[in-house]
Amino acid sequence: MASLMFTDCSSSTTSRLIHLNRRSGTFLLRQCVGQLRLQTTASGRGCCIRSSSSPISAISADTKSSEGAAIVIDGKAVAKKIRDEITIEVSRMKESIGVIPGLAVILVGDRKDSATYVRNKKKACDSVGIKSFEVRLAEDSSEEEVLKSVSGFNDDPSVHGILVQLPLPSHMDEQNILNAVSIEKDVDGFHPLNIGRLAMRGREPLFVPCTPKGCIELLHRYNIEIKGKRAVVIGRSNIVGMPAALLLQREDATVSIIHSRTKNPEEITREADIIIAAVGQPNMVRGSWIKPGAVIIDVGINPVEDPSAARGYRLVGDICYEEACKVASAITPVPGGVGPMTIAMLLSNTLTSAKRIHNFQ
Amino acid sequence: MASLMFTDCSSSTTSRLIHLNRRSGTFLLRQCVGQLRLQTTASGRGCCIRSSSSPISAISADTKSSEGAAIVIDGKAVAKKIRDEITIEVSRMKESIGVIPGLAVILVGDRKDSATYVRNKKKACDSVGIKSFEVRLAEDSSEEEVLKSVSGFNDDPSVHGILVQLPLPSHMDEQNILNAVSIEKDVDGFHPLNIGRLAMRGREPLFVPCTPKGCIELLHRYNIEIKGKRAVVIGRSNIVGMPAALLLQREDATVSIIHSRTKNPEEITREADIIIAAVGQPNMVRGSWIKPGAVIIDVGINPVEDPSAARGYRLVGDICYEEACKVASAITPVPGGVGPMTIAMLLSNTLTSAKRIHNFQ
Repeated sequence: MASLMFTDCSSSTTSRLIHLNRRSGTFLLRQCVGQLRLQTTASGRGCCIRSSSSPISAISADTKSSEGAAIVIDGKAVAKKIRDEITIEVSRMKESIGVIPGLAVILVGDRKDSATYVRNKKKACDSVGIKSFEVRLAEDSSEEEVLKSVSGFNDDPSVHGILVQLPLPSHMDEQNILNAVSIEKDVDGFHPLNIGRLAMRGREPLFVPCTPKGCIELLHRYNIEIKGKRAVVIGRSNIVGMPAALLLQREDATVSIIHSRTKNPEEITREADIIIAAVGQPNMVRGSWIKPGAVIIDVGINPVEDPSAARGYRLVGDICYEEACKVASAITPVPGGVGPMTIAMLLSNTLTSAKRIHNFQ
Repeated sequence: MASLMFTDCSSSTTSRLIHLNRRSGTFLLRQCVGQLRLQTTASGRGCCIRSSSSPISAISADTKSSEGAAIVIDGKAVAKKIRDEITIEVSRMKESIGVIPGLAVILVGDRKDSATYVRNKKKACDSVGIKSFEVRLAEDSSEEEVLKSVSGFNDDPSVHGILVQLPLPSHMDEQNILNAVSIEKDVDGFHPLNIGRLAMRGREPLFVPCTPKGCIELLHRYNIEIKGKRAVVIGRSNIVGMPAALLLQREDATVSIIHSRTKNPEEITREADIIIAAVGQPNMVRGSWIKPGAVIIDVGINPVEDPSAARGYRLVGDICYEEACKVASAITPVPGGVGPMTIAMLLSNTLTSAKRIHNFQ
């Protein structure tokens, strides 16, 4: 069970614990202490006066100050732009060689959250013209049945990307099933062979994991220079932190990785021109951790209790946004920052795969 | 052609250029300016008063100062100890199940340096009881002939490790040939699948690349704590810097990687409790770069002109030893530090491979 401790920016003390069922288990929440001072606005937060709905031309990622208000990196707008670009490419491919990129999803069991994710992926595919395939198996299916589905999609020439929706039921060997996905169709990019190629100079991964790819894409689309900058990645997970660090390094940043064993995360973070936070700790990075003018990509999507919200909670990032946006030069909001990019990158990877398989430029 | 600029610690100015043919090409050298003040002693340098020929019990890898003289990390002695341990294990394996670990080397062409390395590997194998196999192919061999040799060793049950000696002749596709080596026998550990597993939490590589493995082994054998320490790796090569950083991270260090695009390497290096330098720049890291009490692993082996030496040159590391040993708490000499560890780790990987293939504990 994942265990997270939640606080707001205004206090580091904690009070009663609540439980919230979410995704892969029950998350342990600490109720926010004191009233959150964040105001909900069009950009999701109240303190930022600059906002941009489209990529901008120049953001400093070094120490040269902000003027007290960060540019909001609009992931929703960038993701929409990317999806529009994908739509055009899918259409061009269909017209040129009669091939439609296809994404297959395997869903095992009855988890509502998993069903929602799969539905969203299907919708996203539909919106850009990618064909989606789906297999739903019962919770008590055998591992062999899942492997048979994977194998079927591996051999199916109309499928160019395969996703096994996680988590799988506990009686299954997740690693075994993921390893069965053909490396040419592993659009999640989590295969060790892909990660190895990502780490190595002179090698190219077949796919880059979607969320870290989305982070870097945001920096690119906002013309934020990476080369030669000091970057700090907070978190070292296989699916975000570690590949994000490898990507930043490929782009010639000087990268430091902060994790649970790091003794002075605040001090190290303060050295960074670019911060990518992917640790799953709501509001962990305070304003005092941030060098003036730094660029912040917040991957965290953490539910915190909010009685005023319809669902009783709302989502915040790993960065204390209300403090950070006064110090940083640019920052992603939560939600509406990295989140929408992940699915856009999944569609992008599926298109890339179809192009590669059919040798279509 | 690799191009290196050589200076000694005493001056950063440069004078005339000389050429020295070494290993994979001609290295561009800058003659040492001023007389090198290093004195040759038993430990290879003159400024260190503490020395240890066997692993010691406690070295501080944090800021708590040295007293002006570093402990010399004796790679030669540690490597000998490891080879003794391997000898015992090889013997035990032979007696228990009748299997002798085997290492195969493929050498293509007539390079004298390559022939020397292969001869040294054979000697090392002999010294611990590992069986060595060798194929020598002519410079003008075809890629297919090399691939045939690789394939033969892949299928040979008495071979547990395969090395293709680099560099290969220029008409061959190096990557293609290296990829042909069975992942189970890739004792160099350079396969992207191994690197990927090294990068990922919860995954285990089949083999760890020999030189970075040797660096970490030295830290372990000298009981130098890694967990929670700040580590800086200088250099990001596929064979040393990058895997060394991944290994340090696996051991819960907070790792930063410095490379040619890093703007302030001195400042970042000064934050480190542990420094691994693998950049191929003689004496690049000066005393002023080093935090008092830091532990230094110097992977560099750089030839610098020395008319007093029989060969006209001598070897120095990437660290300016004479300055560093006054600031650091522990340091590897060059030669006699990391160098002897690499071949010991190759033997260790070959033994590990044989044990795994034969399921011998």
